[in-house]
Amino acid sequence: MKLLRYGPLGREKPGIMDGEGNIRSLSEFVSDINGTTLSEENLQRLQAVDISSLPIIDADVRLGACVGNVGKFICIGLNYADHAAESGMSIPSEPEVFTKATSAISGPNDDIIQPRNSDKLDWEVELAIVIGKETSYVNEEDAHEYIAGYCVCNDVSERTFQLEKGSQWDKGKGCDTFGPIGPWLVTRDEVKDDNNLSMWLEVNGKTFQNGNTKTMVFKPAYIVSYLSQFMSLQPGDIISTGTPPGVGLGQTPPLYLKPGDKITLGIEGLGTQKQRVVEHK
Amino acid sequence: MKLLRYGPLGREKPGIMDGEGNIRSLSEFVSDINGTTLSEENLQRLQAVDISSLPIIDADVRLGACVGNVGKFICIGLNYADHAAESGMSIPSEPEVFTKATSAISGPNDDIIQPRNSDKLDWEVELAIVIGKETSYVNEEDAHEYIAGYCVCNDVSERTFQLEKGSQWDKGKGCDTFGPIGPWLVTRDEVKDDNNLSMWLEVNGKTFQNGNTKTMVFKPAYIVSYLSQFMSLQPGDIISTGTPPGVGLGQTPPLYLKPGDKITLGIEGLGTQKQRVVEHK
Repeated sequence: MKLLRYGPLGREKPGIMDGEGNIRSLSEFVSDINGTTLSEENLQRLQAVDISSLPIIDADVRLGACVGNVGKFICIGLNYADHAAESGMSIPSEPEVFTKATSAISGPNDDIIQPRNSDKLDWEVELAIVIGKETSYVNEEDAHEYIAGYCVCNDVSERTFQLEKGSQWDKGKGCDTFGPIGPWLVTRDEVKDDNNLSMWLEVNGKTFQNGNTKTMVFKPAYIVSYLSQFMSLQPGDIISTGTPPGVGLGQTPPLYLKPGDKITLGIEGLGTQKQRVVEHK
Repeated sequence: MKLLRYGPLGREKPGIMDGEGNIRSLSEFVSDINGTTLSEENLQRLQAVDISSLPIIDADVRLGACVGNVGKFICIGLNYADHAAESGMSIPSEPEVFTKATSAISGPNDDIIQPRNSDKLDWEVELAIVIGKETSYVNEEDAHEYIAGYCVCNDVSERTFQLEKGSQWDKGKGCDTFGPIGPWLVTRDEVKDDNNLSMWLEVNGKTFQNGNTKTMVFKPAYIVSYLSQFMSLQPGDIISTGTPPGVGLGQTPPLYLKPGDKITLGIEGLGTQKQRVVEHK
């Protein structure tokens, strides 16, 4: 299933994408797409629904982040060897973990607002995992059971805030609109191999990132297991798994986003995001 | 007002502490103490209530974290010059910002669970700010208007996880039960000067931390203003403002917590927390 949320910011409703690319309302069955409704039982219940009978929603509707009420938005840094190299950092011996503020979460096609005093606004296409079931200390072998599905994430980053204002990165990762999530959450049963998904990102029509999750240093199942050694994971938590090479910081010379720029990004089977960069009001 | 939450974990109810130290139920007026109910209008409404008429709750009831449904749990690192020195780090030129997982939040007297593979479990008494009103780009002069109140926070830390497993600290800060918050939220009007509050922490009856917020590098109003340059702050967000010297890492030799240890900590006017360290099941 491709689960999504549509409507104005803060008042999104649950929906599902049918085989013809129509958005259908799920309001009859769930109040929202979030940690509460992503349980296995609930997903099985939705899977039994005759989607073709559900009301079609106007295709022009705004899409919200595909998961609501996210508790944790965790990121894995430097998880592609060649991205670590372009960032001038070494491959971590275990996953590097940082956090995006949940207030940074936005819809997949919402504008990216360049914060005041930002001069190094950058992009990062990433595979995001959505947790479906609470877990602690889970083995790598069992980790997939706790994944409800996957979605595209643009881990928008401000490199001055991230790297030049102290040792910790969170300041440059959690600005408002720095977390476009979606367009939809693809349930785990529809993703054959999360270790082999091609992914790409263009700025103003030029391809900058063109990678595949198969070159990750730490794979999704390992990441879920690893994180669960440090903290419990709850349904609706999002884990963004790192970016392949080709970010602005890695260009020669570095190239950063400015108001008016258009970003498109996508992952095989998980859909496409389109964002425009705008100045802060 | 001293606002609090009481009852079993996950089913806490709103309460208030009266002048005699009784817990009184606030259920008649608010559904919970959280971002929604911490608005200025709501606080004014509560201030008009005749507390002495409210039902008294059994004094032995469990206290929950004094704020529910926290969106962001942000921390400021190395914010006391002498604590930076004992940690072997230099004073930051601007606030060092990291994040505690909201799933780490626990009641002020709940057990602290030592995670598996933990060998450097440490304590940090801290003044926490609770945001009452959404803000972005607020000036230091106006920042207090956005503070609903203050509470005690124990920024429990696992130093191996924090410092020996990569460059980012969040892994050692967000373990379950690493964020005791409370016993109550003291509203801003009752805290005369957040730059002059004494604070202390004891382990097994011996005093290890004995500080005052007046020796902070960056003051509460500055911190709120500073953070709001990077991300919007929402009602119910918690900002823990750093710890004075005397943590386990700073002892010679370093001294860490083990199951059975008892911690007590408090801040002038904000109450006391008591925790016992237990082994992970």
